[in-house]
Amino acid sequence: MKTLAPLALALTVSMPAFAQENGSSTVGGGFANVAPALEAYTNITIIGDLWQRKGLTPRDRSIVTVSAMIARGHTANLAAELERALANGVTAVEISEIVTHLAFYAGLGTAQMTAPIVEDVFAAHNVSAADLPGLDVDYLKQDAESEATRVQSVAGLLGDAAPSLAEFTTDPLFSEIWLRPGLAPRDRSLVTVTSLIALGQTAQLAGHLNRALQNGLTGEEAGEVVAHLAFYTGWPTGFSAGPVVREVLQSRSE
Amino acid sequence: MKTLAPLALALTVSMPAFAQENGSSTVGGGFANVAPALEAYTNITIIGDLWQRKGLTPRDRSIVTVSAMIARGHTANLAAELERALANGVTAVEISEIVTHLAFYAGLGTAQMTAPIVEDVFAAHNVSAADLPGLDVDYLKQDAESEATRVQSVAGLLGDAAPSLAEFTTDPLFSEIWLRPGLAPRDRSLVTVTSLIALGQTAQLAGHLNRALQNGLTGEEAGEVVAHLAFYTGWPTGFSAGPVVREVLQSRSE
Amino acid sequence: MKTLAPLALALTVSMPAFAQENGSSTVGGGFANVAPALEAYTNITIIGDLWQRKGLTPRDRSIVTVSAMIARGHTANLAAELERALANGVTAVEISEIVTHLAFYAGLGTAQMTAPIVEDVFAAHNVSAADLPGLDVDYLKQDAESEATRVQSVAGLLGDAAPSLAEFTTDPLFSEIWLRPGLAPRDRSLVTVTSLIALGQTAQLAGHLNRALQNGLTGEEAGEVVAHLAFYTGWPTGFSAGPVVREVLQSRSE
Repeated sequence: MKTLAPLALALTVSMPAFAQENGSSTVGGGFANVAPALEAYTNITIIGDLWQRKGLTPRDRSIVTVSAMIARGHTANLAAELERALANGVTAVEISEIVTHLAFYAGLGTAQMTAPIVEDVFAAHNVSAADLPGLDVDYLKQDAESEATRVQSVAGLLGDAAPSLAEFTTDPLFSEIWLRPGLAPRDRSLVTVTSLIALGQTAQLAGHLNRALQNGLTGEEAGEVVAHLAFYTGWPTGFSAGPVVREVLQSRSE
Repeated sequence: MKTLAPLALALTVSMPAFAQENGSSTVGGGFANVAPALEAYTNITIIGDLWQRKGLTPRDRSIVTVSAMIARGHTANLAAELERALANGVTAVEISEIVTHLAFYAGLGTAQMTAPIVEDVFAAHNVSAADLPGLDVDYLKQDAESEATRVQSVAGLLGDAAPSLAEFTTDPLFSEIWLRPGLAPRDRSLVTVTSLIALGQTAQLAGHLNRALQNGLTGEEAGEVVAHLAFYTGWPTGFSAGPVVREVLQSRSE
Repeated sequence: MKTLAPLALALTVSMPAFAQENGSSTVGGGFANVAPALEAYTNITIIGDLWQRKGLTPRDRSIVTVSAMIARGHTANLAAELERALANGVTAVEISEIVTHLAFYAGLGTAQMTAPIVEDVFAAHNVSAADLPGLDVDYLKQDAESEATRVQSVAGLLGDAAPSLAEFTTDPLFSEIWLRPGLAPRDRSLVTVTSLIALGQTAQLAGHLNRALQNGLTGEEAGEVVAHLAFYTGWPTGFSAGPVVREVLQSRSE
């Protein structure tokens, strides 16, 4: 890529849509006066290459980026990424469901850290509580066989050591949260897998990758999520997840 | 729980003590304009069910919640949770000791992120430096046998690869911090176990769970801590900790 | 250390350089009204003992401390630690390279959280974009044999599960970032190892420790990094890293 150096300025200048200011943050860098090289890599490598790759749609990349920032409590550029998500076709209802889903998978604490920023972006788009789903929704139908397998797996993991956790996992997590219609199961899996990779929680990754593939995520997309997150949450998170993706895909092709 | 939807509004309205404003944060949600469903789950499932469960006292739940927020650097609702902790019988001296203990177990960096919020809450309650313990305290008596076992375990783990770490672990960590009288050993263990689960540090969890059980935490309480933290720091942190609790309880009953 | 209690006040008073105010933060505590004991431990044990130990120079300790704070998103005392780093001989160019390096190893999200603070410190020292390296630098020469081994190792880990990740790891990560001349390979390794320990990413630690030792970090320094980080990012991060350091040093001496 060393020969691309002259391109850096050109790209930066020619990408007003990508580099647009959003309050004090941009979807690109903000590194111009801190690390000009990083500013260039953000524009050339991340925006100009990674985001353009065919393996994952811009909408999916926005779901992954926003979910990673919420899961890790990275508030700095979240507003700009929420704007990009809306521009990429993620709806306000889906963002609302992502926040709820991540409150369970990354913790209420992370949801509390990021909710005010989501609220501001919603307000700027005239989205209010009345536009967002509460508890009164038409839940998707639960797959009884898959649910029975899950309950058995939880029993094997926990025994009777944490009965409240087993209970809350059944209700509301799998009997309500996963069945809410505002976010498709495939996207809900994408959010879950993103959170696990972003937080380095590899112990739960294989199980949720299998669920994601059953819910319609492709193997190619899973691999591209890993590359995308290497940039946003660090190379080691990508390299901890990559081998798990390889093993899951391998075991399913056998 | 689907039938409970109508209860959501009622509970929200009838729980002024829980939902009271504290500056810009509340112990409940703050999700009304972001994710009405999450607001309802916070009020119904977390406040209305989890916090009411008998397996762990409200005082213990406050110690766990505050410790998790400090360990994870979740500052958003920390002030409200510190107020709830004081209301639930956790003293200012105990909170001060929790901060010091977590500076060692979750790092000085996390203590620095959260100290200003603790300071503001203390100021609002007229708690000043003079009310809080320094180094001049009557240390608890160290159990010589348990300490010898610990030193041997550290030597096995580190060899001579990190002599300063071995030294600081002996003094001040185990010869002073763990023996400070402002927080009972059982509560100090509760804080330690909480931090390990909240940060996904399962490698050290079995050892500290055994110490916690020796210090008076019950197995039932340990399981309920896991369920409580699943909500506050994410389901995967609960499911990484649950099997460790199961194994430790099993090995002690054999 | 119990006999050192009277020394606490003396040290605090006699260390104006260490305890100097920097905006609202100090390199020491800020715990006086929250946890007087922790304030004393910060001054006596961390500043008065740890930072004075011969196993790691003050410059290295500053690189480790600043890198840990950036990697963990600990913004509270980062400005003060950047000032100390500059005073300890870390240059603005090196700090800029540390930010870029950590954008890859701890994620763009963490770099975005901390960049505004670096920018403010740079501005106070009249460091602007023109003083900092962009893409147009004289790259160090890559070691072909070591690079071939790395490529093979990545192929073994990822198979063809994440082709974009394998590609970006080759270019730009190892063909550009690691070869940028603004930060010596030994210091770049120090930053990488620090980030891995600080974030508990032990799976990648052995590989990068071996690279660090090849790049000139000594085994004694590695052990002292572990002790230093135990204080800044928590005891469990030290105790997860310590055994890996022991094993790597052992395998290299065989």
